[in-house]
Amino acid sequence: MALPVRLPALELPIRILGIDPGLRTTGFGVIEAQGQTRLYVASGCIRSGEGSLPERLHVLLKGIREVCEQYQPQQSAVEQVFVNVNPQSTLLLGQARGAAISALVLAGLPVAEYTALQVKQAVVGNGHAAKEQVSHMVQRLLNLNGVPQSDAADALACALAHANHATGGLANIGMKSRRGRWVSI
Amino acid sequence: MALPVRLPALELPIRILGIDPGLRTTGFGVIEAQGQTRLYVASGCIRSGEGSLPERLHVLLKGIREVCEQYQPQQSAVEQVFVNVNPQSTLLLGQARGAAISALVLAGLPVAEYTALQVKQAVVGNGHAAKEQVSHMVQRLLNLNGVPQSDAADALACALAHANHATGGLANIGMKSRRGRWVSI
Repeated sequence: MALPVRLPALELPIRILGIDPGLRTTGFGVIEAQGQTRLYVASGCIRSGEGSLPERLHVLLKGIREVCEQYQPQQSAVEQVFVNVNPQSTLLLGQARGAAISALVLAGLPVAEYTALQVKQAVVGNGHAAKEQVSHMVQRLLNLNGVPQSDAADALACALAHANHATGGLANIGMKSRRGRWVSI
Repeated sequence: MALPVRLPALELPIRILGIDPGLRTTGFGVIEAQGQTRLYVASGCIRSGEGSLPERLHVLLKGIREVCEQYQPQQSAVEQVFVNVNPQSTLLLGQARGAAISALVLAGLPVAEYTALQVKQAVVGNGHAAKEQVSHMVQRLLNLNGVPQSDAADALACALAHANHATGGLANIGMKSRRGRWVSI
């Protein structure tokens, strides 16, 4: 009887959930990465509505949990949010990000973090690329028919950055790993 | 056969979990309020350790979940955190608060929010009271043998503020309810 053939671990497809957190709208994007291949799985936005802060965080938590249950990602990547000029906005954004990471760790997913610069570097090859360039490259890299919504595109870009990380891609574009994160050399 | 006697709903004891969120240390305090009576149940601190941000948020989530399972509170109250001078610290604190509220809503608890001013007003009768006065009043109001740790004392104070809210106590000290929150008149 022939033994089952095992592909090398690196060649197994990895399903990655990218998250672009926000209190009003949180973008999500799921891709599958295998070697240099990137496949689109799903993307969308979770809108927290008009309730109290705890109610809105609950909507985000439930939304991310549903995405995890439906698409069964194995790894996750969250964009590091900007520190806003308005401290109150920074605090609200922080709370949304805290709820998003909570949903991911409770789903048992490892969570990687990437700055906007790292994401743009990985997807466009230029850390200071415009938002439209990121959407355009996400559409091209994933062979999408249309441009995804802005928050969903950012989440997909974050997943793509993590896919590059997982397959060593970022090492070729001026990044190095330090304490489990990719930083500029 | 005699029918069971039902106490009026307002007189039933309410078990309240107060939370003082922080990324390094999150304080918790559980009390039971019945009419004007306040009983101490438990308090302590959850320390998030030295891991990555997602790991630390996971520790906070698990800690609060354990407290909920062990002490079975029916309501919760979270202190509104200060906006820090350093935006990065504000962001980190926001994420810890987001994780704390996540743990509470996932445990099915209603979450009330109080500013430090409201908490001090309710416990000391002066919104600008010193930290030591708050700890002292917490000790007195709950008949504790010693002064609790600072973060635990703040969490107990938050639970006491909510108990006053639930029994209409804050209405006597210059507060009114607006959109489900207590604000200064």
